[in-house]
Amino acid sequence: MNASEADTALGVAAATLLGERRLIIATNRGPVTFAAAADGSLRPRRGSGGLVTALGQVGRHVPVTWVAAAMNEGDRRAAVDPKLLRQAAGDDDAIRLRFASVERAVYEQAYNVIANPFLWFLQHQMWNLPERPVIDAGTMRAWERGYLVVNEAFASAVLAQARGDRRPRIMLHDYHLYTAAESIRRARPRALLSHFTHIPWPPSSIWQNIAPTIRLGIANGLLANDVVGFQTERYAHNFLRMIESFVPDATVDYDARIVRRKRRTTRVRHYPISIDVEATRRVAGSRAARRRADQLLGGTRERVIVRVDRLEPSKNILRGFLAYEALLQRHARMRGRITFLAFLVPSRTGLSEYGDYGRKVQNSVDRINARFGLAGWRPIQLFYENDYAQALAGLSIADVVLVNPLVDGMNLVAKEAVIVSDRDAVLVLSETAGAFDQMADGALPVAPADVVGTADALAAALAMPVEERRRRLAALRRGVEDEDVTWWLRRQLEDLAEISD
Amino acid sequence: MNASEADTALGVAAATLLGERRLIIATNRGPVTFAAAADGSLRPRRGSGGLVTALGQVGRHVPVTWVAAAMNEGDRRAAVDPKLLRQAAGDDDAIRLRFASVERAVYEQAYNVIANPFLWFLQHQMWNLPERPVIDAGTMRAWERGYLVVNEAFASAVLAQARGDRRPRIMLHDYHLYTAAESIRRARPRALLSHFTHIPWPPSSIWQNIAPTIRLGIANGLLANDVVGFQTERYAHNFLRMIESFVPDATVDYDARIVRRKRRTTRVRHYPISIDVEATRRVAGSRAARRRADQLLGGTRERVIVRVDRLEPSKNILRGFLAYEALLQRHARMRGRITFLAFLVPSRTGLSEYGDYGRKVQNSVDRINARFGLAGWRPIQLFYENDYAQALAGLSIADVVLVNPLVDGMNLVAKEAVIVSDRDAVLVLSETAGAFDQMADGALPVAPADVVGTADALAAALAMPVEERRRRLAALRRGVEDEDVTWWLRRQLEDLAEISD
Repeated sequence: MNASEADTALGVAAATLLGERRLIIATNRGPVTFAAAADGSLRPRRGSGGLVTALGQVGRHVPVTWVAAAMNEGDRRAAVDPKLLRQAAGDDDAIRLRFASVERAVYEQAYNVIANPFLWFLQHQMWNLPERPVIDAGTMRAWERGYLVVNEAFASAVLAQARGDRRPRIMLHDYHLYTAAESIRRARPRALLSHFTHIPWPPSSIWQNIAPTIRLGIANGLLANDVVGFQTERYAHNFLRMIESFVPDATVDYDARIVRRKRRTTRVRHYPISIDVEATRRVAGSRAARRRADQLLGGTRERVIVRVDRLEPSKNILRGFLAYEALLQRHARMRGRITFLAFLVPSRTGLSEYGDYGRKVQNSVDRINARFGLAGWRPIQLFYENDYAQALAGLSIADVVLVNPLVDGMNLVAKEAVIVSDRDAVLVLSETAGAFDQMADGALPVAPADVVGTADALAAALAMPVEERRRRLAALRRGVEDEDVTWWLRRQLEDLAEISD
Repeated sequence: MNASEADTALGVAAATLLGERRLIIATNRGPVTFAAAADGSLRPRRGSGGLVTALGQVGRHVPVTWVAAAMNEGDRRAAVDPKLLRQAAGDDDAIRLRFASVERAVYEQAYNVIANPFLWFLQHQMWNLPERPVIDAGTMRAWERGYLVVNEAFASAVLAQARGDRRPRIMLHDYHLYTAAESIRRARPRALLSHFTHIPWPPSSIWQNIAPTIRLGIANGLLANDVVGFQTERYAHNFLRMIESFVPDATVDYDARIVRRKRRTTRVRHYPISIDVEATRRVAGSRAARRRADQLLGGTRERVIVRVDRLEPSKNILRGFLAYEALLQRHARMRGRITFLAFLVPSRTGLSEYGDYGRKVQNSVDRINARFGLAGWRPIQLFYENDYAQALAGLSIADVVLVNPLVDGMNLVAKEAVIVSDRDAVLVLSETAGAFDQMADGALPVAPADVVGTADALAAALAMPVEERRRRLAALRRGVEDEDVTWWLRRQLEDLAEISD
């Protein structure tokens, strides 16, 4: 299927599911947020990020009502100002914007106590478990008076958009919105409800550590949906095991991937997310990106290793540098002939774990540059900023792209890399990235804690004959072109349509 | 089945399996170790620990040859001194002792680089994964030149004892000996080989982090056995998933719990280990223990909470104290009326993680005692020594026994506690302890990170009417009496006998 056929197929799927309806999408972060200008007036600002890009697709085909959290005072004011909301959505009515709004303190509890430092850490297995997490009275309060309240606000906002419709079509997204479906379901028993989790779903032994109230609340919330989606087959399996372990009155059918409970059936599916291939190519091909690519290339040596990541402990940046260090140590002839470009995007700078991790990353870079650097040669060049075009420019000039996360829901950098490569890049990819399931045949696999193995993979990538590089890259590129973000979205719409009869 | 019937049944199972043979058992730590006396002569010293106690049982029924690692110079000298070995085994020939001996440096690599700080941490999920472990050249060297070499030495020592026997009966034990079976199998294709893992078997997502060489080495080693045993159904399932994930030419049958590979079939079973009920009662009933119980009781208040653990991060001691602190904070009337006796046994004091953890435990106790203590009342009394009789005395006087490990292969303290209780103790038990599978009906469950829930469980236990305490304890006690260490051993012998035809 080429791009325009895929586009048409998405349109057909959307129309089949919706008929005359609008699709209701709910996400924590919306396509627009409002910042107050100097004069106190509110200006809409377009959001970025993979999720917004991915879901924005559907607005090209069918009318969408998008419910997002009011994340700041500007959003809270806009939430009750129809004119601002209209303005934010642009002139046409393709995407209608609504906010789920709660008091700032309530949102903070949900976002800064539960979602980011608790659920994100839990699902990425980022804790030193003998000491963290500690589920104390503050955690339970934030769960009850923050997370659940925000989810109720989402349910109300969604229901307000579904007025008069007994079977509204609703897609909920990610770890901020695990419990919203229950209230929606109570009010609209015949609604078509789906939830998609963008981050990893860990095994039951991880869920077993936390308060039963929380894990059961999450399970009950998700089981109120008709379809529960995950990035990979493994995450879907882990979810089924979790339900079997913790929800006594649910029946799990592993072969059919179905959970039955009372009279409700929940289908458990996997839909690997992807990128907008055309949009990615457009940015990478822009004059600014091309110029930046040339500049970067001018500052590097014969061979170039590239990584692009949020500065985030689960991305395993430290061990990536240790592997590069082992490579330089083992292969003295590489010294002075290779450059590691690391594009790291600031992330969650308010969390101490991220600050600590960032300092360790910087120290590691300094140490390796001091140990191996020569006059005129810095082994690692670190870029710490949020510059998407520059990151794509970096990927385009790579000989080797290193994507070695500890665990990752999907990892879109791996997919961007194979689309924008100009130099037959070899992809070194962690087995624990969601993307590995689709890219195993073309990538060189690494286990994230295996520094020796990662160094071996980098060496193998650098030594690979150009024919093999080309063959692998071509196969990977075909895969990403075929299973792009349109495909991700279409399959979800089709699965919902199938049960709408 | 009463104790003497169980004993007879074990004898029958052993005789059926063995006929005229000796059973060959291999464990890292043996029943005897040799220390040099002041005059340089070697004195045998009996080992302790659950494994030695459990396996010592079988020697009462059939002749056993026990191969253990030479752990020090004394053992290495004794390894080649038949007279010393005979002396160590006592006068009769029921248990014959042999050492698998390698150079000290090799053993250190296996024990102090791989087994304890790597496999133990991995299988108990004790790492801060964004930073640890780092599998570097040193780790791989210790695996290849330490762990594998020690396992080869075990294989040779076992084979030397199986001379002339085409179908020797061999039981290998625990995480020190994952790879020994392969060489034994090569030399004796028809040997009856079993391996039992005493510690948890984590999900595949944990194994996926480490070097493929190591995880595949472990998988291949274990699949050379006829039977692979684990403590719980969940660990057995995790093993099957691991094999399916990482061993492409193996076929996994989840219903039959069998792995097929080439022409070999490996049965995957679970055998929850237990205690020697009579021996435990004997120690708890000894005059010394009774006297100690009275002394302890004299120093406590109306209600007594007890924990007994090695000082070990996976035992979750810190959160146990935090839960007690929450209890004292919530229920002011308990202050001055309750005592927490914590019996902590020194463990692996050479590992920095254990030292750090111990300091945090001590600080936590000091803080809580300073915060709530009154003249004449210390909320927590900490005992830091290895005194088994004292620990049983403590358990015997408990109103509540707290067993809240983060994860635990089995946890024998939970089983000892219900056998020796004199005061209708309520057992508060972590869902993540292997023992929970057998004890769920009688114990109060807690999730290990859930400090609020643990405080609730302690409060519920303290408030429980005596009739319910008795009913629960009686059920738990019956369970431990029925499924004691004899039962654990007999089922393994029977399963091996079944395939010996």
